[in-house]
Amino acid sequence: MPAFARNQWYVAAYGHEVGRELLGRRILGEPIAFYRTEDDAAEVVALADGCVHRRYPLSQGRLDGDQLVCGYHGFTYDRTGACVYVPGQKRVPRTARVSSYPVVEQDSFVWVWIGDPALADPATIPRARHLADPGWTSVSGMEPIDCDYGLLVDNLLDLSHETYLHGGYIGTPEVAETPITTEVDEGAGIVRVSRHMDDAACPPFYARSTGIEGRITRWQDIEYHAPCLYLLHSRVAPVGVLPHPDGTDPDAFHTEITYAITPSAPGHVYDFWAVSRDFAQDDAEVTAFLRDFNHTVVMQDVDALNVLQRALDAEPSGYQELSINIDTGGLAARRILTRLAEEGAKPVEHVS
Amino acid sequence: MPAFARNQWYVAAYGHEVGRELLGRRILGEPIAFYRTEDDAAEVVALADGCVHRRYPLSQGRLDGDQLVCGYHGFTYDRTGACVYVPGQKRVPRTARVSSYPVVEQDSFVWVWIGDPALADPATIPRARHLADPGWTSVSGMEPIDCDYGLLVDNLLDLSHETYLHGGYIGTPEVAETPITTEVDEGAGIVRVSRHMDDAACPPFYARSTGIEGRITRWQDIEYHAPCLYLLHSRVAPVGVLPHPDGTDPDAFHTEITYAITPSAPGHVYDFWAVSRDFAQDDAEVTAFLRDFNHTVVMQDVDALNVLQRALDAEPSGYQELSINIDTGGLAARRILTRLAEEGAKPVEHVS
Amino acid sequence: MPAFARNQWYVAAYGHEVGRELLGRRILGEPIAFYRTEDDAAEVVALADGCVHRRYPLSQGRLDGDQLVCGYHGFTYDRTGACVYVPGQKRVPRTARVSSYPVVEQDSFVWVWIGDPALADPATIPRARHLADPGWTSVSGMEPIDCDYGLLVDNLLDLSHETYLHGGYIGTPEVAETPITTEVDEGAGIVRVSRHMDDAACPPFYARSTGIEGRITRWQDIEYHAPCLYLLHSRVAPVGVLPHPDGTDPDAFHTEITYAITPSAPGHVYDFWAVSRDFAQDDAEVTAFLRDFNHTVVMQDVDALNVLQRALDAEPSGYQELSINIDTGGLAARRILTRLAEEGAKPVEHVS
Repeated sequence: MPAFARNQWYVAAYGHEVGRELLGRRILGEPIAFYRTEDDAAEVVALADGCVHRRYPLSQGRLDGDQLVCGYHGFTYDRTGACVYVPGQKRVPRTARVSSYPVVEQDSFVWVWIGDPALADPATIPRARHLADPGWTSVSGMEPIDCDYGLLVDNLLDLSHETYLHGGYIGTPEVAETPITTEVDEGAGIVRVSRHMDDAACPPFYARSTGIEGRITRWQDIEYHAPCLYLLHSRVAPVGVLPHPDGTDPDAFHTEITYAITPSAPGHVYDFWAVSRDFAQDDAEVTAFLRDFNHTVVMQDVDALNVLQRALDAEPSGYQELSINIDTGGLAARRILTRLAEEGAKPVEHVS
Repeated sequence: MPAFARNQWYVAAYGHEVGRELLGRRILGEPIAFYRTEDDAAEVVALADGCVHRRYPLSQGRLDGDQLVCGYHGFTYDRTGACVYVPGQKRVPRTARVSSYPVVEQDSFVWVWIGDPALADPATIPRARHLADPGWTSVSGMEPIDCDYGLLVDNLLDLSHETYLHGGYIGTPEVAETPITTEVDEGAGIVRVSRHMDDAACPPFYARSTGIEGRITRWQDIEYHAPCLYLLHSRVAPVGVLPHPDGTDPDAFHTEITYAITPSAPGHVYDFWAVSRDFAQDDAEVTAFLRDFNHTVVMQDVDALNVLQRALDAEPSGYQELSINIDTGGLAARRILTRLAEEGAKPVEHVS
Repeated sequence: MPAFARNQWYVAAYGHEVGRELLGRRILGEPIAFYRTEDDAAEVVALADGCVHRRYPLSQGRLDGDQLVCGYHGFTYDRTGACVYVPGQKRVPRTARVSSYPVVEQDSFVWVWIGDPALADPATIPRARHLADPGWTSVSGMEPIDCDYGLLVDNLLDLSHETYLHGGYIGTPEVAETPITTEVDEGAGIVRVSRHMDDAACPPFYARSTGIEGRITRWQDIEYHAPCLYLLHSRVAPVGVLPHPDGTDPDAFHTEITYAITPSAPGHVYDFWAVSRDFAQDDAEVTAFLRDFNHTVVMQDVDALNVLQRALDAEPSGYQELSINIDTGGLAARRILTRLAEEGAKPVEHVS
């Protein structure tokens, strides 16, 4: 499995998860406490989740305005991580400070930077604009999985598993049968995997939400921005219906499937998932159906990856895999992740 | 504890457990998927339980006729373990194959050979004919125990524990008090331990199932075929009733207690148990009573061995035991198991 | 965390916990079976909790008079640990013996000596006379915590945590704000931490049990006898009410809070707690209130220490703490515990 890539942005939470209750998450093995300030800016604060005194998790404490009070002995921190109060004495030791993490709230996600804060550049965060675009309606959730994050990357980069693991849900025989094309931008760390099915069975999920009867033209275009953001552009239309020459595509149904793959600790990953559509946007029944349906599909992956990790843990070291054409995207992703991990492990030269 | 002995037959399941649903078991640490073919032969197939592609357990998949389809990406295997289909391409890689294990179905058990398949000789499997003999009626079950298999061997080779661990069930004071005789056939790997009680209390279990009132002559003759099969020939009769000079024994009640002791992984063992009788064969009430009763007795052992393993795990290394006469059989068994393990670990010279 | 200090007395149980049912406890990693003899002396016996035969826990067995019968094969031990019966033979091996531990029952506690029995001197056991004094009424309990015992020592030596972890229960702002004085008797292994609040809010707990209305003078005088016994002498009175010049103190309410901190195994500690009062001694309602109330407070510590240990277990090795004035007592305690552990690990020269 690839190591963790530091000096990268990761999704830590949905924005709606972070408020005036402290939220503790572990990202790349680092425990972090999140909260939102009460001023008008209502910014998200991310502090290292261990008091300088005796390491008690700060996320077990409480907020006093925009300051965080440790729940054990009352050490109090401002939003920069500086300690501003200790019990029993006036003087606060100079070294009393916890790390704060760069945070950006964008496209409904709270992104946190793990690594050297001096390198954190918000402009490099990949976008998932549909999640905050009123033209799209989304359902979403997060499931922790007890597996290495690499297994979830493998899973999502190779959709042939839809036919088997999600058969009867989102998979039909054509997904596994149709060859893929893969494009890799090593420099940008982006992997694209496309599978265009011209004449495919319509999974019940699309039939019910779009109203299409009969067979479909189904396009799946994956765009994986290593290490964290995975986008699947899905296009469904009656057989033969194609985009117009001018690029508009009014007769097709578009779905954006978004995953954020955030390593929590070795053998543990946060699986953020969202499904956004540009049709039936205001149909509450479709929304409720898609929320339940996609949760079921995600749990099929969660269960399978939990099982797979336990099986791998019981393997002797040095076990072998066998890769075929469908794995081209996944192997490219592993290669990029390995490179990012190596780069993140190097000492950084700061430009002064 | 003795190591695992490879190049041996082990009971993997009862025949009735293996059908058209995939069954996953771990034997000597090796995960194996079992199923039964649908042709007239209805043979048991045993394949290594990890797909060549990404190691997903094949036992999580499904059957398509006599082929096994991986539940993750659809890699499909025939009964020999050869891969016959992979998704997204026509060509199946030449190396796509999982191991298949030699299997023999005999005496109600599914025996599997762990080790070098070239050495698997069905003629060496010890017999438990009563389990499939219409003259005997059996109750049976299987309990996994979280202990080294050696603890179960110890337990079964020394029946003095019946008096204490199973007191009021199958144990009476005479079991612990009566000396044993032990015979060891080192070459064949067989240990025999006999305890003949001439005048003993009748445990309620035998009183109820046989109708005997008063004291009994009770013989216990153990025959352990290392590593897996344990037979206890039990003879119960009113005090003084002995077999006829010609060897027939019409006035006694015979019970065959069978155990198969199959190491699953370090610290885990499958405890297959069966109790067969040559009396009241068609009495459904006796059968139901014996099923419940013996399950209770087995669970007393299961609970005790789980407790014992946890206690041993907390011992400092190099802890000491103290052995006495009752342990003669158990010590012989350990010696044989150690030898079998050493032999199974050696490289094998194949005769060409 | 400090290592375990051997050659010391530890509280293993309350006297009322040890009777004619076997009680198994693990002290400093050593499993011990406790029971009470049935003779008039009704003494507590403590034997190593593993049969010499196959290491089965003796605490799973049963008593036969004052002898302990192993529940597996019936090996039987007298109160000195000598084996007096083995199954199947007359001769008991000379080496068949389990260790017995020196035990003293005092002040409602069963104290056990871990280490070299030749060094066990009952006169060195620190006293908690109020627990068995008719002038005091006590409520008590024991909670196992999954943390190193050092975390519980830290917790109890620094009461500033009352303000935060037990806010609204026993903590008020004055506890954290009031400076402490610390006295250390390195030779005797005693740490004293005092906090005298002249004018403090009255926690609801004292208001309800004493009937005081308004603010209080509140004294907390800790006396920690390393490694096991912790006493907190608590004095509460209306503001300005002080002891008389002759030392009597009739207008104050006194509470003795007792803890016995007994390491069970690495990462596990027994937290024995008792709260004794010299007021409303016969008021059953106050007793019931204090039992529930103090159990709740103890569980706040238990929950916090379980959380803290898990957080520390996830820390990289060599993590840092930051200590301030309030930690003076705790740091002294750690220093003494480290010395006691080193002394207990040395070979002992016996005076002949």
